[in-house]
Amino acid sequence: MTVTGPKGFRAAGVAAGIKASGALDLALVVNDGPQQAAAGVFTRNVIKAAPVLWSQEVLRHQRLRAVVLNSGGANAATGPGGFQDTHATAEKVAEVLDTGAIEIAVCSTGLIGERLPMDAVLSGVDTAAKALEATPESGLAAATAIMTTDTKPKQSWKSHQHGWSIGGMAKGAGMLAPNLATMLSVITTDAALEPDALDAALRAATRATFDRLDVDGGTSTNDTVLLLSSGASAVSPGLDDFTELLTAVSLDLVHQLRADSEGATKDVDIVVCGAASEQDAITVARTVAEDNLVKTALFGSDPNWGRVAMAVGRARAEVDANAVSITINGVTLFANGVPAADRSEADLSGRAIEIVIDLGVGASTTTVYTTDLSHGYVEENSAYSS
Amino acid sequence: MTVTGPKGFRAAGVAAGIKASGALDLALVVNDGPQQAAAGVFTRNVIKAAPVLWSQEVLRHQRLRAVVLNSGGANAATGPGGFQDTHATAEKVAEVLDTGAIEIAVCSTGLIGERLPMDAVLSGVDTAAKALEATPESGLAAATAIMTTDTKPKQSWKSHQHGWSIGGMAKGAGMLAPNLATMLSVITTDAALEPDALDAALRAATRATFDRLDVDGGTSTNDTVLLLSSGASAVSPGLDDFTELLTAVSLDLVHQLRADSEGATKDVDIVVCGAASEQDAITVARTVAEDNLVKTALFGSDPNWGRVAMAVGRARAEVDANAVSITINGVTLFANGVPAADRSEADLSGRAIEIVIDLGVGASTTTVYTTDLSHGYVEENSAYSS
Repeated sequence: MTVTGPKGFRAAGVAAGIKASGALDLALVVNDGPQQAAAGVFTRNVIKAAPVLWSQEVLRHQRLRAVVLNSGGANAATGPGGFQDTHATAEKVAEVLDTGAIEIAVCSTGLIGERLPMDAVLSGVDTAAKALEATPESGLAAATAIMTTDTKPKQSWKSHQHGWSIGGMAKGAGMLAPNLATMLSVITTDAALEPDALDAALRAATRATFDRLDVDGGTSTNDTVLLLSSGASAVSPGLDDFTELLTAVSLDLVHQLRADSEGATKDVDIVVCGAASEQDAITVARTVAEDNLVKTALFGSDPNWGRVAMAVGRARAEVDANAVSITINGVTLFANGVPAADRSEADLSGRAIEIVIDLGVGASTTTVYTTDLSHGYVEENSAYSS
Repeated sequence: MTVTGPKGFRAAGVAAGIKASGALDLALVVNDGPQQAAAGVFTRNVIKAAPVLWSQEVLRHQRLRAVVLNSGGANAATGPGGFQDTHATAEKVAEVLDTGAIEIAVCSTGLIGERLPMDAVLSGVDTAAKALEATPESGLAAATAIMTTDTKPKQSWKSHQHGWSIGGMAKGAGMLAPNLATMLSVITTDAALEPDALDAALRAATRATFDRLDVDGGTSTNDTVLLLSSGASAVSPGLDDFTELLTAVSLDLVHQLRADSEGATKDVDIVVCGAASEQDAITVARTVAEDNLVKTALFGSDPNWGRVAMAVGRARAEVDANAVSITINGVTLFANGVPAADRSEADLSGRAIEIVIDLGVGASTTTVYTTDLSHGYVEENSAYSS
């Protein structure tokens, strides 16, 4: 189950011919209501793709009838012509759904700097509109059509005992980064919430999930998470309940993104505690998560805490060299600035690795989700654009 | 020629038994005067190795009789015991040179978090003291003894027409990073300068050279550059003349460090111009230099300017998406926010790559020296600690 899990949504994924391979490359998610409330969060990269600029604009009205997504091209760094392409795509979707373009969000992913083959995109919208269904199969097709270097579709669906549910799909395997991964995600719900409540819940959920995924530091030009509410369950949950389930769905998607990220052989949680502030905790966790020497050591299943200490020490945060402790997979190897156990005591042979860094200077904590740096990452990213 | 190029210096490199391999692992550089003025710059990592803490302290007196350096262990994150080891090493060198420990700087490099085998270190000092010579061979032995994953020693020597010269050695192949690479360097001169002039020249030279080398973002716990003046030429050059030659020697060493860095197959200059401030230029250049998606594309000889644009856009600097231009190996691929040429026009098949990023918002400029990210880097760093 996925975006079509909650009541009131139809989806489709089709092969529009944008990808030379002939794979699925265009997805449509439609909210049939009765309400069309929506919220979105977007990349903080200054160089924003045309579909991001468009979708940010239409989201001002906090209402979306549909989202159209394509893989095979990011439509980023494409100038005014690229923006016109996004606009034309939204107009086309509006036409087939008999509504206004202002109710259509657009997402694109793929290579930066190339214009989209618009004939393929526009005829793909026609094909997708005819294929719209409220079935698990159509949700899966949509989740598959947004894949780039992903090896599998990412979907999640969780229901609440009071009769409403949240479903989601996501893509992203490289350029997974601070402040949203290279990543598109559409999340749907049949809970009935006002747009402002959706927005608050989405910001809280992404802050603890998508914003904490950091595979390679590469904040993309296209990152987008959209949340659409149909209200079809006729249930209006409390904001806390809704945020909790939304966070669970988001975390499920984040774990799937991490597990399938380019070349990853390890799922790594970087837990920072004892920080002077949450921002310090995040800064330290990200610095460690992005450190290539740490990441290559983890690829080698090597509990090289010295590299973790090095990364902690160079982070722009309050760090007291004599207060830092580092625990890897349950074994404290470095305590209050001195070695505490032989590194051989920590077993990193499995896929899951947890590094707990206690800064010992405060009470703030965070977790960042990352991976190792493997030959697979280098291979895939040195050959991607061709 | 190297640290023994300038008059007044002797050096030695010996196999003290710190490295299990039996390779050279302890170096001694002695300043026989007539003056012993010195200056140093050190890592900005908060977690500083014991020898860094020691050397910073003794440098307060701006005078050094000798520097002792070991590979085979960084003596970092080793607590009070590690500091005592450094102190004992300095005392031993002072004893054999019949001076005070306060005139002895100590540098260490190798794995973080392990104590040094002090019997080997101390007996190595005796051996090195007996081997001290003012010859190119002894300088080469010293440069060789400080190598870790370096495949070749790094040395430089440049003379001034007025009868003085500057020589230097350096090591560092991984953890090459902002604000000094994982890197040790000792630079000698027979020019006669006051300590404050040496300090000013060293800071100016490192700012434009060692501080601009960024292979993997990993600012080490041990980074040290020391400058020793013997005054043996009896010539006192002007500060500008001296700084110019010191910068040339430093840049020569930096180019050697980059060329030999772990797994590097490309020598990459990231030139940022048109920045609102020098700090902005540095921030953008470093963000691009550290971006794994950019680095893997370069490994694949792929002029993927879209990844460069992505990295520029996520840098914490003043960036106007419509003013950015990117030129790779002489071909402008992205101009004022829109594609300007097909990427196939830029030839990246050679080893040297220059990426010029014009931010178009100011007049500040900088260059950062980096490499690609290759299979070799992953291989070497996933197997290093064992």
